[in-house]
Amino acid sequence: MALFKYLEENKKAIHLHLDQNLAITQFPNTPYLHESIKRIVNFMQEGKMLRSALVTLSYNFLSKTSNPRILNAALSIELIHSSFLIHDDIMDNDILRRGQKTVFAQYKDYALSKKLTMDPLFYGQGMAICVGNIASILAFKLLSQSSTKESVLENVFDIFTREVARVNGAQMLDFHYGGLKQKDEPTPEEIIEMYRNKAARYTFSLPLVMGGLLAKADSATITSLDTMGENLGIVFQIKDDEIELYSLEAEIGKPVGSDIRENKKTFIRSLLYSLANTHEKTTLSTIYGNQKLTTKQIEYVKGLIEKYNVRQTLVKKMENLSVKALRILDKTNGNTTCKNTLKELIEYNVSRTK
Amino acid sequence: MALFKYLEENKKAIHLHLDQNLAITQFPNTPYLHESIKRIVNFMQEGKMLRSALVTLSYNFLSKTSNPRILNAALSIELIHSSFLIHDDIMDNDILRRGQKTVFAQYKDYALSKKLTMDPLFYGQGMAICVGNIASILAFKLLSQSSTKESVLENVFDIFTREVARVNGAQMLDFHYGGLKQKDEPTPEEIIEMYRNKAARYTFSLPLVMGGLLAKADSATITSLDTMGENLGIVFQIKDDEIELYSLEAEIGKPVGSDIRENKKTFIRSLLYSLANTHEKTTLSTIYGNQKLTTKQIEYVKGLIEKYNVRQTLVKKMENLSVKALRILDKTNGNTTCKNTLKELIEYNVSRTK
Repeated sequence: MALFKYLEENKKAIHLHLDQNLAITQFPNTPYLHESIKRIVNFMQEGKMLRSALVTLSYNFLSKTSNPRILNAALSIELIHSSFLIHDDIMDNDILRRGQKTVFAQYKDYALSKKLTMDPLFYGQGMAICVGNIASILAFKLLSQSSTKESVLENVFDIFTREVARVNGAQMLDFHYGGLKQKDEPTPEEIIEMYRNKAARYTFSLPLVMGGLLAKADSATITSLDTMGENLGIVFQIKDDEIELYSLEAEIGKPVGSDIRENKKTFIRSLLYSLANTHEKTTLSTIYGNQKLTTKQIEYVKGLIEKYNVRQTLVKKMENLSVKALRILDKTNGNTTCKNTLKELIEYNVSRTK
Repeated sequence: MALFKYLEENKKAIHLHLDQNLAITQFPNTPYLHESIKRIVNFMQEGKMLRSALVTLSYNFLSKTSNPRILNAALSIELIHSSFLIHDDIMDNDILRRGQKTVFAQYKDYALSKKLTMDPLFYGQGMAICVGNIASILAFKLLSQSSTKESVLENVFDIFTREVARVNGAQMLDFHYGGLKQKDEPTPEEIIEMYRNKAARYTFSLPLVMGGLLAKADSATITSLDTMGENLGIVFQIKDDEIELYSLEAEIGKPVGSDIRENKKTFIRSLLYSLANTHEKTTLSTIYGNQKLTTKQIEYVKGLIEKYNVRQTLVKKMENLSVKALRILDKTNGNTTCKNTLKELIEYNVSRTK
């Protein structure tokens, strides 16, 4: 099945499964609990559901039989992803996501509207910590229903908990980077390592391996899925950096230079800092994190990106990793239709423009 | 076995199990992850480990065979409890717990010592959100290893996720109460309901039921454990209120009137507000939340407590609930030694003075 059709059908299936399997009536009707679950379901409406699609795609690639429980595993990863995003939005102080107010911002507004005797931001943060926790609890409930075979379940829990623990550690590192002085700037290698741990493995390796384990694939295949996923995941993250370049060139609708304004520790930024001379570094430090970014400053960054061939570095790295992923996929035996969809994904991952 | 000896031996067993089963080498050696796990283990050192003791006590009461996996379930509930406390301390802005700096306060100090370019409190809160999440992930990993029988595991996950979701909802309500104006003061019934959902069921019903499910007890016994636990849990919470009364009488070392100073929505407070006349309510509102509480103000609250027989209300409620719990226990068949330990617990729960 063509990639986009697969993603679209997966999204429908996940939403249906969500409605059928997370009926709030399963949970005590106590204040805030049902409301929180509804908020989480609502939060999930706008997601692309890429991770769940990878779970089922990997499963269907490697298994000859169908299994309705695979959707529990797929939904589980979407729920844990929502939990992360709800907590990350607190830590990044992000008010908007996918055009909607973030959860902590919703509760902040609520505190203001009800004239509560508590700092509205503090109120919003506290409430959103709990909503994020509830999303994570739902994720583990679904995960426990992903297989009837205890040995499979133990393997699935093993990889799931290892990878989501890894993400939390990497989120701490990323957050910590946000507080560093310029002289402690992370290197490009450190940024790639952070990309690997924070998003790459968890967005690609984890769902692919989960699908493989549930399909009872052999350990060599599991290792292949893991490595392929890691390569694809790093490409995915670097691609986000490259898309920020498009934004600098005002080719897309994204606010121009948002990564620069937010002082985000990106791969591009680390490359610039590692290549720039002392004078350029000093100028960069007046630009990154500047809320009132001028056109002239954006032009300056674009000039350095050109001077140091940053885009070429990005493109080359992505191509190398994509080729590696493709080679691994070629050597892995499985359902031909799914293999073609996975190939399409590898291609799209490196060519997407948004 | 006598209760205190049981608690002490349980604590040793849990710590040993923690060392053997949460070796950090199981997790990726990425920045902050191993450090976070060590911090969680350290955080758990000083706990009483009541919840884990209830899991094994209930299991040993109802099962004729021993099962090493029961310790996975017991450790799991201690880990989720640590996760709650780490997050609760952020929401309560509590700097100290069990004589140690709380996790967010540790990271706040770290940000200050490293002169990070981020608000130290915000830094501490963000880091502690992630550490709390990691504790919760570890809890679910251990829980998935609590039984080799898929149907038992599904039941254990069912009660565990239902009850910990309930706690999060109740924590939101408690937090929300902290922001209410005096005219919206919760009633005594609402406070008891919050006690039930926030701590009672999760501290007593959940571990007792987990032990029962793992011992494959019949559904009537599970219901008995659930109800007995709920009664004991509410007593436990009211007892904390009564201990605050001792503190008002300066009989124990706790800072005198800390619940009043912190403006905590306790059962005592809700009783006072529900019974006081308009004039008394106005005076109370100048006392609750007052950081510079005077001896005269403490005497005023003590006077009202006496006038409205608050202590008697507390004692009577606790006695009723304890008797109910004892009756349920009497009717439940199981190992006599464990039954006696449980009886001792019911007795201690209502008579403890700290």
